[in-house]
Amino acid sequence: MKLVRFVPQAGTGSDTPRWGVLEDNEIQVLSEEPFAGISREDTALSLPEAQLLPPVMPGKVVCVGYNYIGHIEEMGQQVPDEPLLFLKASSAIVGSGDDIILPPESERVDYEGELAIVIGTRCRRVSTSEAEQVVLGYTILNDVTARDLQRKDGQFSRGKSFDTFCPLGPWVVTDLDPLKSNVVTRVNGEIRQDAAISSMIFTPAFLVSYVSQAMTLEPGDVIATGTPAGVGPLAEGDEVSISVDGLGILANPVRSEQDR
Amino acid sequence: MKLVRFVPQAGTGSDTPRWGVLEDNEIQVLSEEPFAGISREDTALSLPEAQLLPPVMPGKVVCVGYNYIGHIEEMGQQVPDEPLLFLKASSAIVGSGDDIILPPESERVDYEGELAIVIGTRCRRVSTSEAEQVVLGYTILNDVTARDLQRKDGQFSRGKSFDTFCPLGPWVVTDLDPLKSNVVTRVNGEIRQDAAISSMIFTPAFLVSYVSQAMTLEPGDVIATGTPAGVGPLAEGDEVSISVDGLGILANPVRSEQDR
Repeated sequence: MKLVRFVPQAGTGSDTPRWGVLEDNEIQVLSEEPFAGISREDTALSLPEAQLLPPVMPGKVVCVGYNYIGHIEEMGQQVPDEPLLFLKASSAIVGSGDDIILPPESERVDYEGELAIVIGTRCRRVSTSEAEQVVLGYTILNDVTARDLQRKDGQFSRGKSFDTFCPLGPWVVTDLDPLKSNVVTRVNGEIRQDAAISSMIFTPAFLVSYVSQAMTLEPGDVIATGTPAGVGPLAEGDEVSISVDGLGILANPVRSEQDR
Repeated sequence: MKLVRFVPQAGTGSDTPRWGVLEDNEIQVLSEEPFAGISREDTALSLPEAQLLPPVMPGKVVCVGYNYIGHIEEMGQQVPDEPLLFLKASSAIVGSGDDIILPPESERVDYEGELAIVIGTRCRRVSTSEAEQVVLGYTILNDVTARDLQRKDGQFSRGKSFDTFCPLGPWVVTDLDPLKSNVVTRVNGEIRQDAAISSMIFTPAFLVSYVSQAMTLEPGDVIATGTPAGVGPLAEGDEVSISVDGLGILANPVRSEQDR
């Protein structure tokens, strides 16, 4: 099932975000958030009638630093014995199609294509075997990073939390086994990252369990599972797209803040 | 003005959090959140009739790493040329009187008494001179830290985001000049931290401006302004209290998770 969050296109109705199930280019509207269960209204609209939003607005975005060997090597890091966590501000979230804005503070802003886990059930200290039960589904996240500010600060959060630095979407898929897919990042159509998700060091189930040992996970919270090799800079005018088979494509144009 | 968030004591009404203005031990109930303006209902209750909650539930808690010379020295750090930011998960927030729970993962959990800024107005890229206009008021925050996990990870967020690691309160004061007060931390009544807030390196107005260069600040967001010298460990059975003249006392008992 593909879960979308949307508002009707401008001029056609209210601007209160709604949830829906996307099937065959039609959105079946849900009466409430999908976390406690799927309850369909008797209304639908076609995909072009809706403006898709980020599929969740999480209370927290927990990210994993080094989870693919290739990226660990390109960053000159050691393979960690447990996941390295950091937080990204939810205020950085934008949806597919929205601009990534390059701020004047940074000389180098990188894309990082990632599989993202969306939590469905409030939980703390779940085991790896219980993790699947608290996951609503999966989506795609671009962990956009001001690499120079990340290095200067040492702490990752500021350089990864500028407004628009967290593209998320296009929707949440509830019935995907992510370990069977690749995560592929393209810039202007050219492949820059392409890795089997199954090659990640810490699996989604392990990550959910690990994060939940520290923090209560809430419905809508997002865990970004780390990026594979091939990160690189974005420039004004680029379009970056990240695809995962079964999850669709998260595509965002890149603009410079000065030119807005 | 002292702004509180509360629910009526158990058995006396709904459990929907409400806002109020605290005056002379009486809470005047507000009809809505205080961010867009203060609108009082024609109802009031006495302070003992209310169970106080954390005074805001922020979308993000932005913290400042090293903002007092004494703490920089005790941590063996250099004086930074700009604020070092990191994020703390909102799910760690508890109110005054709530337990701080020591998790089995850490051998050393420290208190860190801090002045906290509460944002009132959505903003981005405000100047230091504009900052006062976007601040709702001030409160107290205990930046509880699993020091061993902070050191192991390098990234601060996990060791500072365990559930209960963000006591916040007891209320938001809208008309305080924080630079005239001291922040004082006591453990079991004994003073452990006592510093003039005016001795901080980066002022509250500067911090609001600095954070807003990267991230849109939303109503209710919290900026923790850093801790002075004297951080130290908490143990099962301790009570830690942090006071700032004019802001009241944020007091929390300490319990071990194993003994719950």
